[in-house]
Amino acid sequence: MIHEFYEREKPVPPEDYVRVDHVLLKNYVTSIFEKLGVRRWEAEIVADVLVTADLFGISSHGVQRTRRYVDGIKTENIDIYSEPKIIVDRGAIAIIDACNGLGQPVSVKAMELAIEKARNYGVSLVLVRNSNHFGIAGYYSLKAVEKGYIGVTMTNSVNLVAYTHTIDRIIGTNPIAIGVPKREPPPILFDAATSVVPVGKIEIYSKQGKEIPPGWAIDSNGNVLYGNASYVLKMIKAKKAALLPLGGLGEKHGGHKGSGLSFIIDIVSGVLSGAAWGVHVGYTVGEKPSNVGHAFMAIDISAFMSIEEFYNRLQQYIDEIKSARKHSKADRIWIPGEKAWYTMMTRKKIGIPLHKNVYNELINIGIDVGVELELKTL
Amino acid sequence: MIHEFYEREKPVPPEDYVRVDHVLLKNYVTSIFEKLGVRRWEAEIVADVLVTADLFGISSHGVQRTRRYVDGIKTENIDIYSEPKIIVDRGAIAIIDACNGLGQPVSVKAMELAIEKARNYGVSLVLVRNSNHFGIAGYYSLKAVEKGYIGVTMTNSVNLVAYTHTIDRIIGTNPIAIGVPKREPPPILFDAATSVVPVGKIEIYSKQGKEIPPGWAIDSNGNVLYGNASYVLKMIKAKKAALLPLGGLGEKHGGHKGSGLSFIIDIVSGVLSGAAWGVHVGYTVGEKPSNVGHAFMAIDISAFMSIEEFYNRLQQYIDEIKSARKHSKADRIWIPGEKAWYTMMTRKKIGIPLHKNVYNELINIGIDVGVELELKTL
Repeated sequence: MIHEFYEREKPVPPEDYVRVDHVLLKNYVTSIFEKLGVRRWEAEIVADVLVTADLFGISSHGVQRTRRYVDGIKTENIDIYSEPKIIVDRGAIAIIDACNGLGQPVSVKAMELAIEKARNYGVSLVLVRNSNHFGIAGYYSLKAVEKGYIGVTMTNSVNLVAYTHTIDRIIGTNPIAIGVPKREPPPILFDAATSVVPVGKIEIYSKQGKEIPPGWAIDSNGNVLYGNASYVLKMIKAKKAALLPLGGLGEKHGGHKGSGLSFIIDIVSGVLSGAAWGVHVGYTVGEKPSNVGHAFMAIDISAFMSIEEFYNRLQQYIDEIKSARKHSKADRIWIPGEKAWYTMMTRKKIGIPLHKNVYNELINIGIDVGVELELKTL
Repeated sequence: MIHEFYEREKPVPPEDYVRVDHVLLKNYVTSIFEKLGVRRWEAEIVADVLVTADLFGISSHGVQRTRRYVDGIKTENIDIYSEPKIIVDRGAIAIIDACNGLGQPVSVKAMELAIEKARNYGVSLVLVRNSNHFGIAGYYSLKAVEKGYIGVTMTNSVNLVAYTHTIDRIIGTNPIAIGVPKREPPPILFDAATSVVPVGKIEIYSKQGKEIPPGWAIDSNGNVLYGNASYVLKMIKAKKAALLPLGGLGEKHGGHKGSGLSFIIDIVSGVLSGAAWGVHVGYTVGEKPSNVGHAFMAIDISAFMSIEEFYNRLQQYIDEIKSARKHSKADRIWIPGEKAWYTMMTRKKIGIPLHKNVYNELINIGIDVGVELELKTL
């Protein structure tokens, strides 16, 4: 029954894409960062977060972002030699100063600390300041899930979204990811930007030559911007357009809810952590450290009820949703995280599809920094 | 500068509405519940939650709901004689069994416990099972804010929403309310149903003879339902229509995000607390106890940084949002909770507008249960 969903992969045009084994890809990207001077264990985490995004089908956050981190390191806008410091540690909470190091390793450490604290107190909240872009938020929530905990990950991010009733890019797409363990995989993983779509989706549409529907972005006069994705992307990058918050323009369909949620996530991740917020969050490659802020929570299910009872109750809920009457235009009713999981299962077997531009860029980076591995295609 | 926003009240047609002093209204509603046998302190809390909703301009959740609770008590579907029990109490977490009592008093107690735990551990999570409808979620988050804490309140609720790609009412409007203290009022209060709109908004539109725009509801064939609000409301009540999650129908504008968030809120409030979930959550007046589940979190700001530093940083962020370029169609850029707060300031001065139907219903309930106070109009 499950197997039919494993083969979720849509065919990719062979003239544009190659496929690469995920283990090789991870080793290759690890090697790139190691050659740049990143400590081995940190390079492995960065590569794992990137390749996991590709396995999940979120190619916008996958190895295509290698260039961005490489440039951040080369320009020394990221400090790969620093060590994170725990600067507040009280009961169930902590603040870690990432000291402008890479966002991924400190985030794994922060979630591990959150799990340890949740084991002692039932729930925890660990904040991180002075960090950098950490990739997909869901990666860290899944670290909690692997240990049987509910994991919550939030982060602020570079300003791309128009807060409701404003017209400029003043808040981030500030995502929240919540992972919940189940008896059998896939675990539940809700991972969502608080904008209608992340900018990565517009990048992908742009690469595919697709049209943006009305309702995702506005231009700097406040008019809904749609159509040619490359044009929309160019306008956003030039700060002549902004993404819309979840719920869309104005308040009619709840845009103030997406906008408000983004603001709240920034208050916890940015204001309370001691990091930057809103327009002050920097880009990985820039003239100042990004000073991104993250938040990690863990909840110990077994403090509330036996894990078996929780699994039974959750499975019943899922079965009830799955057996509901389906909309005629939908292929299937999805539980958060399922699509990504089944895509991962498929891609682990048949390889990760990389756009040739991305593949060639990786090869060039590899040559540039002296990677010895060959990135063979399947 | 602030005063101009105090007078937010739109004029109400005097042939349809009366105005009542909020203190008198609270005393009157308290008396109704006391006459029904509810303990004085609990009756006061129920009345305060209802009247606060009216003060905030959320009349859908205001004293117009008195009838619903009265009927729940009279039919003994709510047990006003029970006492809540703390059944799990470990470190920073707890579960309270409301024993089918009123939702409001146990929720105040639960948030107080969450605050006490956050004082000791920095963060906390208190869940409530076997509860009833608790009114506006924001009320409890503000209890944390009054003490200088960030407060988070979530609840599940009766099934009114179509989970993405389903067409029936299978999940609740499951709101989340997050309150954040500021140096000067109003505090930040984000309080949002995870549906595009709460059903109360459709009730209000129905009373006002207004039209529902496309995008709020679907009929039981999965078609977008709009137009005459009374008809839409009738269809929802007859289970021939459902509200749409925040983000709307399908996934194009992020409906799976609203739907997923609602599901996650139910997992914490309902599944993990030991309460009902999804279609099992009962209505206040029904054939079985509602078994609503709630979740309350408190975060001790002073565990992370000095409260003064937090206030300074937050105020700067707010000032930056407020000074952004405004959309030409918007009257003003709002911070979550401001509208409600300014409406409250106005209504405390000039009284709460009650639709005559609501006013007459209260009078009739008062006569019925033997309230001695006179509900004088202004």
